Amino acid sequence: MSKYVYDFIEGDRSQADLLGGKGANLAEMTRLGLPVPPGFTVTTDACRAYLATGAPPDGLYEEINAHLKEVEARLDRWLGDPRDPLLLAVRSGGRYSMPGMMETILDIGLNDTTVAGLAARTGDERFAWDSYRRLIQMFGRTVHGIPADEFEHELAALRATAGPDGPGAGQLRDLVDTYKKIFARHAGHDFPQAPHEQLFLAVRAVFESWHSERARIYRRQERIPDDLGTAVNVMAMVFGNLGPDSGTGVAFTRDPATGAPGVYGDYLTDAQGEDVVAGIRNTVPLTELARLDPASFHRLREIMATLERHYRDLCDVEFTIERGRLWMLQTRVGKRTAAAAFVIAAQLAEEGLITADEALTRVTGAQLAQLMFPAFDAAGAPEPLAVGVGASPGAAVGRVVFDSAAAAASTGPVILVRPETNPDDLPGMIAAAGVLTSRGGKTSHAAVVARGMGRTCVCGAEALTIDVERGEFTVGEHVVRAGEVISIDGTSGRIWLGEVPVQPSLVARYLTGELRPEADPLVAAVHRLLGHADAVRTLGVRANADTPDDARRARELGAAGVGLCRTEHMFLGERRELVERLILADGPAEVGAALDELLPLQRADFLGLLTAMDGLPVTVRLLDPPLHEFLPPLAELTARVAGAQARGEEPGHDGVLLTAVRRMHETNPMLGLRGVRLGLVVPGLFAMQVRALAEAAAQRVRAGGDPRPEIMVPLVGDVRELAAVADEARRVLAEVPDAPEIPVGTMIETPRAALTAGDIAAEAHFFSFGTNDLTQMTWAFSRDDVEGAFFSTYLERGIFPVSPFESIDATGVGRLVRLAVAEGRAARPDLTVGVCGEHGGDPESIGFFAAAGLDYVSCSPYRVPVARLAAGRAAVEARTEKSDSR
Amino acid sequence: MSKYVYDFIEGDRSQADLLGGKGANLAEMTRLGLPVPPGFTVTTDACRAYLATGAPPDGLYEEINAHLKEVEARLDRWLGDPRDPLLLAVRSGGRYSMPGMMETILDIGLNDTTVAGLAARTGDERFAWDSYRRLIQMFGRTVHGIPADEFEHELAALRATAGPDGPGAGQLRDLVDTYKKIFARHAGHDFPQAPHEQLFLAVRAVFESWHSERARIYRRQERIPDDLGTAVNVMAMVFGNLGPDSGTGVAFTRDPATGAPGVYGDYLTDAQGEDVVAGIRNTVPLTELARLDPASFHRLREIMATLERHYRDLCDVEFTIERGRLWMLQTRVGKRTAAAAFVIAAQLAEEGLITADEALTRVTGAQLAQLMFPAFDAAGAPEPLAVGVGASPGAAVGRVVFDSAAAAASTGPVILVRPETNPDDLPGMIAAAGVLTSRGGKTSHAAVVARGMGRTCVCGAEALTIDVERGEFTVGEHVVRAGEVISIDGTSGRIWLGEVPVQPSLVARYLTGELRPEADPLVAAVHRLLGHADAVRTLGVRANADTPDDARRARELGAAGVGLCRTEHMFLGERRELVERLILADGPAEVGAALDELLPLQRADFLGLLTAMDGLPVTVRLLDPPLHEFLPPLAELTARVAGAQARGEEPGHDGVLLTAVRRMHETNPMLGLRGVRLGLVVPGLFAMQVRALAEAAAQRVRAGGDPRPEIMVPLVGDVRELAAVADEARRVLAEVPDAPEIPVGTMIETPRAALTAGDIAAEAHFFSFGTNDLTQMTWAFSRDDVEGAFFSTYLERGIFPVSPFESIDATGVGRLVRLAVAEGRAARPDLTVGVCGEHGGDPESIGFFAAAGLDYVSCSPYRVPVARLAAGRAAVEARTEKSDSR
Repeated sequence: MSKYVYDFIEGDRSQADLLGGKGANLAEMTRLGLPVPPGFTVTTDACRAYLATGAPPDGLYEEINAHLKEVEARLDRWLGDPRDPLLLAVRSGGRYSMPGMMETILDIGLNDTTVAGLAARTGDERFAWDSYRRLIQMFGRTVHGIPADEFEHELAALRATAGPDGPGAGQLRDLVDTYKKIFARHAGHDFPQAPHEQLFLAVRAVFESWHSERARIYRRQERIPDDLGTAVNVMAMVFGNLGPDSGTGVAFTRDPATGAPGVYGDYLTDAQGEDVVAGIRNTVPLTELARLDPASFHRLREIMATLERHYRDLCDVEFTIERGRLWMLQTRVGKRTAAAAFVIAAQLAEEGLITADEALTRVTGAQLAQLMFPAFDAAGAPEPLAVGVGASPGAAVGRVVFDSAAAAASTGPVILVRPETNPDDLPGMIAAAGVLTSRGGKTSHAAVVARGMGRTCVCGAEALTIDVERGEFTVGEHVVRAGEVISIDGTSGRIWLGEVPVQPSLVARYLTGELRPEADPLVAAVHRLLGHADAVRTLGVRANADTPDDARRARELGAAGVGLCRTEHMFLGERRELVERLILADGPAEVGAALDELLPLQRADFLGLLTAMDGLPVTVRLLDPPLHEFLPPLAELTARVAGAQARGEEPGHDGVLLTAVRRMHETNPMLGLRGVRLGLVVPGLFAMQVRALAEAAAQRVRAGGDPRPEIMVPLVGDVRELAAVADEARRVLAEVPDAPEIPVGTMIETPRAALTAGDIAAEAHFFSFGTNDLTQMTWAFSRDDVEGAFFSTYLERGIFPVSPFESIDATGVGRLVRLAVAEGRAARPDLTVGVCGEHGGDPESIGFFAAAGLDYVSCSPYRVPVARLAAGRAAVEARTEKSDSR
Repeated sequence: MSKYVYDFIEGDRSQADLLGGKGANLAEMTRLGLPVPPGFTVTTDACRAYLATGAPPDGLYEEINAHLKEVEARLDRWLGDPRDPLLLAVRSGGRYSMPGMMETILDIGLNDTTVAGLAARTGDERFAWDSYRRLIQMFGRTVHGIPADEFEHELAALRATAGPDGPGAGQLRDLVDTYKKIFARHAGHDFPQAPHEQLFLAVRAVFESWHSERARIYRRQERIPDDLGTAVNVMAMVFGNLGPDSGTGVAFTRDPATGAPGVYGDYLTDAQGEDVVAGIRNTVPLTELARLDPASFHRLREIMATLERHYRDLCDVEFTIERGRLWMLQTRVGKRTAAAAFVIAAQLAEEGLITADEALTRVTGAQLAQLMFPAFDAAGAPEPLAVGVGASPGAAVGRVVFDSAAAAASTGPVILVRPETNPDDLPGMIAAAGVLTSRGGKTSHAAVVARGMGRTCVCGAEALTIDVERGEFTVGEHVVRAGEVISIDGTSGRIWLGEVPVQPSLVARYLTGELRPEADPLVAAVHRLLGHADAVRTLGVRANADTPDDARRARELGAAGVGLCRTEHMFLGERRELVERLILADGPAEVGAALDELLPLQRADFLGLLTAMDGLPVTVRLLDPPLHEFLPPLAELTARVAGAQARGEEPGHDGVLLTAVRRMHETNPMLGLRGVRLGLVVPGLFAMQVRALAEAAAQRVRAGGDPRPEIMVPLVGDVRELAAVADEARRVLAEVPDAPEIPVGTMIETPRAALTAGDIAAEAHFFSFGTNDLTQMTWAFSRDDVEGAFFSTYLERGIFPVSPFESIDATGVGRLVRLAVAEGRAARPDLTVGVCGEHGGDPESIGFFAAAGLDYVSCSPYRVPVARLAAGRAAVEARTEKSDSR
């Protein structure tokens, strides 16, 4: 027969699957000899068996009774004893913490008889009746789903009429009568008087709470499997509400906000845990306990030190002091802020409690990213004007501008406000401190570009009606005009009128060399852990950078090269006119003339980049987007021309453009004439880019530099496409004197490229996974189109754990990545393999890429430190798994 | 040392790789004891060695000389012998026939001395000088690239001045002098007089011809590898131009046009083979030879019979009669028309020369498709008005209409003429005999839909300027108005003014039950071979059919069910208004009301289909396209609204629609909110369709029918999407009394579905590959957008052998198919797996699907017989491979 019940003295913390987190830690504390009230845990196995059949497994109640008897014997008190009754607390506790989902019933064992015994033993009749009313209320809610309001309403009414010392014993006894009536009305029978029946019903109710609506929703959100079940902890009651020498509190072994050492926490005299949670009375800092009860305080500090040494991490505890005696009710490894995570990990390593490797696994890339952004001083912030989607973290304050020209012309910091952004807004986004849009979600153009540039961005603020032409936006009755100051919080999405004070990011100042590591404990911790990450990681980190400025910043932040230079950004702005000429060209001669004018501009672009990244690889992607993206959109031109015609005017240049745009129109530009296809169809386009790169590199060589350019071909699906471009590139390179060797590689961004990676590797010096496009093609949805349309539904229904554009879909897209790495390397053992999609900066995905054996990730400059840290973690985890599997 | 030269008596027909097709067959005929002039073949190995180094491999000339000596000894005549010179013919001949690419030099061995010997031996001086001038001309062209025109010009001038018997010997001698001057001017030296030098230079020139521009282009088109090289056949000359008892001809063992038995061919007295090709004199039917030279005719018939028995197939031959003596110069398995292919294969099987299995491998699905379409009488056709792309075969004659309404209203046959078509033109396409467009290629909407419906279609006829509003189109100066009769040929793409006579397709009349198999030998042959295909095939054939009519037709043509019923076609026409209401609905109540109105219509659709396919599976795909496709296009609405505004008018309903279309606009609708996503986002949509299907099935059950519906979910990428829809479907099905069990399966049309097929199979009763979308996503191009833009470039550059939308890309897309079949079946052994993309009707692809282990293909009704045949062939080929590998 299965064993369904474990006494606290039987288990340990390794048994969280079976005993739940709380039960396992109670057992661990008991094992350490700490003062835990006696009790036992009913296992998750029992819960699963109950949920499967709807009935407790055979023998469960007998087993509970047997363990209860041991507890009774140990305490020499008995459940239901009319003179000195043992009371029990029943608490749920699953494998994973589910805050707010927890079911708790205290004071099991009280009834019309034992309430008198409790009063007699404690000498506190008021306390006894108060405990009884608590039991009826909790039991009613948990076992019968009676709304808490019904009880609270009566309690509030009584409190309102009671004197300054609160209700007296008689009043509470009357309240218990009222409660019992409420109970009977809802439950259809009287409150059960038999203590064992109370216990069994409570256990059963906890089991059933696993399938409650709110638990289900919570688990779906948190990706906790539905079939784990919960354990039930049954523990002898101890009371913090037995007078001024009693109390209850929570404590942390270090400050969970800053990581500073020392015991932190809150304490409440003459109270039970629920009173703290309910916030009825204000707590005092834990240090007060040193004054109130020095012995207990001293004992608590000893226990906390023991726990931290034992768990080798920040612990938090719940404790109760019953008439001067300290009891530990719970402990666990405690939650903490990002800053505290770094400081604690570094300090524990410093203290020798954990290794440097372990310290690295205690922090995440996401935490580092959070620490790099400036933040508003939460305390100083007024009511926001509106709330949008926090799309790119940071705190930005500036004057409102509505277009790029205004942004560029401004002297002080500005916030660019647009309904949505497109590539034309790029100069404005570069010039602005922050970007605010009224449309689009976390993967809209504004969001993606802003994250890439490290600009603060709030998007999809639907409450804003933006009128770009009038130069104002309105929110309800507020009208905000160009030039007015606003503040936006890229984390919370909040938007304020006026300036809200900002705290600078110490970590960012350190990473850009402005602060020394010694300046602050947090900075010292980041320095230590990032240094260790760099020492252990096997994955290189490059940056996606299109300009010399970006490249320099990336280098400063630790990038070992440029993994993706997108050349399309070089065709915007004033060059758009040249590109238009290229597109409208009539015949190869005009195409050639337009390309000839682009060549020196492009060469200058590359020269700047190669200079900034001297000695490090610079991977240049040949032109990728469809050419019609450089022309105005079809609908806009159609409207302009139709309007002109209706007014009897000549459409002029708009008419010419409309004809071209119509001819080039694509129903699905993502699946259209772009990437390598463009290079094979537009004669001389790629050759011009290759020549510009080669000439720039040659110029660097002649100047004594060490240029290391690489040519990357986009959107390849078949080796013959790549071979054709590589042939042409070799022909061009051979014509440029002093040009260094320039490797030619390819993006792997179509499923077919991954599926034929073995063939493609024959022509490719390197692979770089374009996981944005690869995700789009593998799932058959485009980031532009679907995120708003159904991602929220999918996330809610649990079809995605997280957007596959945020963290790589390891099952589907990841399978293509693994396959391409394996078959590419089999065909060409010295193949360099990287990734340059947005996933390259996502810590979760970086773990995947490290495991898949990539050589490097490339991400936006601001993500470089994040990627370095995540790569370090991944290396440690891989080592750990390896040694585990030995 | 390698052996580079094979005497005809050394080789056989299995050595085509080494000896080329011609050489191998010459050897085979020699082996059979047929009268082949002595000679030898220089191998493709020698050619490859030459091409690799630019020089003949060591010992090649010595080996040629040794073999030449044997030939000389056998004939007792010698190359260069001034009294009776041996002359040689040198001909190229690779592994694969490359018509028009072949290089031939005759009369090698003639020079200023031997020409006299030849005159003496033949007693025909004129013949000898004519032969010499032929040698100089062919040698000049082949070895030195001298344009044939330069020689032909002189010859024509001479012929013009000569008497009725042609030029005399003296005139020809003078012509030779002129030819030698032309030669010297181009070559930079005199015509080589040494016969062995002539021979070696000729062999070398043939080698080099392999790399000529036109050979390269031809090979690229025909997908013949570039590295095979050609063999060179050297043979003693025999002369058909030695007077009235000489001649030359070609013959077939059966009629290559109809397959009728008996020897067919053409004969030309007193001529060489080139004269036949040049068409200077008209040939006579071979039967004339019976009169002219009964002995040779009899011998030829014997030889032809021997060859057909030996090759077990139609053979064609080239022969020469030299003064009453018959020589065989070439044979091969002969080309034939589609009709002849069927008739011959069936007859040879009948005669016991080949097995029924073998007969099946002698015909192709493409040939059957060709035979199913009516055709114009080629002889009776005048000059076409214009030529477009032959997009859907057939011959259609009818009055010109420019829209669906006119097509539907017309009583007689009509041709629908549109710049391009869209789903709104569907009723018109159904009503029309043929479709003609001025834009789009073989995979445009018009082409795909027309092929699917078996409608004749010519598209992309760019010479047409179509003015739909005025109801006319113009071609140059011709103006064609609505109501005028035109004829279009869907095979050749030709368009004629007026009615061109049409031959009905016997095969189609047989397949639809109108003709008995005995009616015609061709029909009998198709009956026999299709019957055998049905007997041996393992692959089922279903049809893609959206209407009861289509389903009935498919069943008639042998479909074993409907593999794809697209429900979007059911939402067009008058129901568009309901769909518009659904889209514009404000809140779930209005959505529900619109769905409630659609339900009975949809139920009636399904009822018709289930009735037509009683007893056979009907796979219904839930709604797939994005909802905005049911609204007018954005650009159109924008223009309408902008025009109205410019005129100071209210946009009205257009304004409402524009707002909706803008809101729903997708940059890449192919990658947008469609398929299963739609079902999960629009509440009740899929449930309505499931309910309609279940109710229709229940109605059939109650009426004593045997409905076998299946529900297919489109665009699934993750098993959880499918599970959600399947759950909903089960809920709905449980509510419909009398509904049969309805399996729920999924399209596999996203790469991710294929990559996670093992997971998906857990929730799917069946898979159906949507290879159109799968191809689009795997390659990252959309059929709508890229075909015109770059497919022609890709086909030319050899990146595709054929459009991957026409025949499945076995390497890339096919890998996903194989993987999904294997992993799907591993997870669910009884999984049914089919394909319903356009590839399901492509014979090439059907071979792939059979090998991949699919259970069935589903194709348009008219392709069903083609698919049955192709499936039969595939089964035979699989058996053959299996027994070969034993």
